[in-house]
Amino acid sequence: MVRGHVFIAQSLDGFIARSDHELDWLEKQPVEGEEHGYGEFVEGMDGIVMGSNTFKQVKNFEIWPYEKPVVVLSQSLPPEAIPDRLADKVRLTRARPFRLMQALKEEGWNNVYVDGGSVIQSFMRADLIREMTVTTVPILLGHGRRLFGALDRDVDLKLEEVHAFPSGLVTTRYTVLPGETSDAD
Amino acid sequence: MVRGHVFIAQSLDGFIARSDHELDWLEKQPVEGEEHGYGEFVEGMDGIVMGSNTFKQVKNFEIWPYEKPVVVLSQSLPPEAIPDRLADKVRLTRARPFRLMQALKEEGWNNVYVDGGSVIQSFMRADLIREMTVTTVPILLGHGRRLFGALDRDVDLKLEEVHAFPSGLVTTRYTVLPGETSDAD
Repeated sequence: MVRGHVFIAQSLDGFIARSDHELDWLEKQPVEGEEHGYGEFVEGMDGIVMGSNTFKQVKNFEIWPYEKPVVVLSQSLPPEAIPDRLADKVRLTRARPFRLMQALKEEGWNNVYVDGGSVIQSFMRADLIREMTVTTVPILLGHGRRLFGALDRDVDLKLEEVHAFPSGLVTTRYTVLPGETSDAD
Repeated sequence: MVRGHVFIAQSLDGFIARSDHELDWLEKQPVEGEEHGYGEFVEGMDGIVMGSNTFKQVKNFEIWPYEKPVVVLSQSLPPEAIPDRLADKVRLTRARPFRLMQALKEEGWNNVYVDGGSVIQSFMRADLIREMTVTTVPILLGHGRRLFGALDRDVDLKLEEVHAFPSGLVTTRYTVLPGETSDAD
């Protein structure tokens, strides 16, 4: 099966964005000159799966930030939500996470960057995430959109790597250990 | 003012206990022989402030685990909730966090270990926490009692120290930076 990978920053209290999706709090951090590993991470991916909220944010960037193919997972976005200039870079799907990963496997994908809070949560519940790089930002927000959501079982992790940066960011890389469900596959 | 200190473990998704207060998930971790710094931390404290939930759990331990004086903060516990054998070790108060810290200061306390989810949250909101040592356990629980709660402003932190252990636990120590309210004091 295709391996899902997460690469994301959260506040110490577990938020990836304010309630209105704002990321201003990330810009308070003095990260100039720090290399948090994003480039190397993306290099190893065959493509990116994201939700409609993430897509709506990035599609308005002046420069499209991804070189890899992007799949937008949405039950509600109409095809015309993909601007013509992105037609060869982005496709839209309503597939369920497991089916989508099967289809991507058939296309030859092995490693998928899974991005956006609710997409990460649904892929985690479907046991499709194999590795997570979580960068903890030294701030408490108190409110917002959470990285993690409800689960129907504990998910055990194996710490692979930790790196602390002068800005106070702490990057941790975890392997997701297979659950009982996977053992029974 | 007395400085509040937190020393606590959370799951990667921010829980300090399951919904029923269970801590079984902490015992899954192979931490034998690891020194996570608790002894040294407690050594530097003048005493401990905890909530009624934490107190109800520890009062049934066969051996009372604290050498330092303990203050139980509760609006509802009656005086007889303190067993006679703990009468010289534990006192009960209904004081609000700020008043309590003032009273402890008058007794000569400088550093207080603040323990228990809701007490930590109310002390954080009252800007009474100066330092936090948060150990992240490599597990996702999906549900439970959270370490952090709602805030009426961002709380900026300064990373002081990070330590990763063979078990996969990652200990991070943060100083809580003064907020605008404190600057105006």
